[in-house]
Amino acid sequence: MASIVLCDIGNSFLHFYYAGRIWRENPNNISLKKPHIPIYYISVNPNFEKKLLDSHKTCINLEKFIQLQGVYQGLGIDRKAACKAISNGVIVDAGSAITIDIMEDNQHVGGYILPGISSYQHLYQCISPALHVPLDLSVNLYAPPRSTKEAISFGILKSIILMLKHTTQTKKMYFTGGDGKFFAKYFENSIFDNTLIFKGMQQALKENNII
Amino acid sequence: MASIVLCDIGNSFLHFYYAGRIWRENPNNISLKKPHIPIYYISVNPNFEKKLLDSHKTCINLEKFIQLQGVYQGLGIDRKAACKAISNGVIVDAGSAITIDIMEDNQHVGGYILPGISSYQHLYQCISPALHVPLDLSVNLYAPPRSTKEAISFGILKSIILMLKHTTQTKKMYFTGGDGKFFAKYFENSIFDNTLIFKGMQQALKENNII
Repeated sequence: MASIVLCDIGNSFLHFYYAGRIWRENPNNISLKKPHIPIYYISVNPNFEKKLLDSHKTCINLEKFIQLQGVYQGLGIDRKAACKAISNGVIVDAGSAITIDIMEDNQHVGGYILPGISSYQHLYQCISPALHVPLDLSVNLYAPPRSTKEAISFGILKSIILMLKHTTQTKKMYFTGGDGKFFAKYFENSIFDNTLIFKGMQQALKENNII
Repeated sequence: MASIVLCDIGNSFLHFYYAGRIWRENPNNISLKKPHIPIYYISVNPNFEKKLLDSHKTCINLEKFIQLQGVYQGLGIDRKAACKAISNGVIVDAGSAITIDIMEDNQHVGGYILPGISSYQHLYQCISPALHVPLDLSVNLYAPPRSTKEAISFGILKSIILMLKHTTQTKKMYFTGGDGKFFAKYFENSIFDNTLIFKGMQQALKENNII
């Protein structure tokens, strides 16, 4: 797998995988990769995709090779890729949005979308300047909040965690994304794996005999 | 109570109460009230407050007369006023933000803040153009969503409702605000009362022997 680069183009960053190593790059400052190594990518952001294609010759869009069984219409390609990596369980990709997807016997049975922590925080600021306060990520989730800072932090974190607990029941949870590690600690039957999307991409490459 | 006008200045509209009637007005198009009738008001928006004061001579800010027992620091004056209207229960004011406040024996024991439905919807659009879809307010909250529209609607509504159910337990719920009626229908022990803030303001007027 060292002979190719994998790239996941999101709405904030480009995430790369090469030879067991992962890193992210700013879309306006993509480092030049070695020209003889092909880049297999998926993208949810056409603008950032163009930036990659403009600067690199050998880029192959993996989208059409990622087939996922399920009834959900319009599932984002990044969510499809992550789902390819597991057979049973709940995948939580916690970035600027938090996507939750449920897999049963290699079938995608449904999923939903919440705003990410930083998106929530930005939203409160937009609603009212009075709600422009720093978050307290260690706020007590088991006592009524007693300040604006607590009230907003509690609102964001508890609503997300209640939803996840309600979804997971006894299922295993797979956390990924920038805030994945943070949320994983609230769940016993969970693992954090920031390579989930890349594992799914590798799975698709194998299924299609590309590598 | 017909000899005064009450006004609640929010972040989207000005809400008025006069002679048992309530209505809302756009801050940029405030209708001229009769000059001999004083306007007792509360405000969370200094710009809109200025618009009222610029166009009306006899306006009295009720803020300093609204005393609420409790430990919460920085509780908005609109939330304080609504809390004055009840002795025991949970108040949910569902507007551009959703504020949840818990009253026990005339004491405010805590509360929290969630984004309102329309704020959530706006936020998803900002996260990604792919999430710019109309909401389905009758989405099935008991089955995994199967489209982006369902995934977002489910994320918004179920997270809010789970939070409210978790808060209310056996307490009575008082819903107010633009989306109050919509949420009230999900709860058995609930009432919708769009005059809650005005009832609290009247309570404060009485306590302070103003009327």
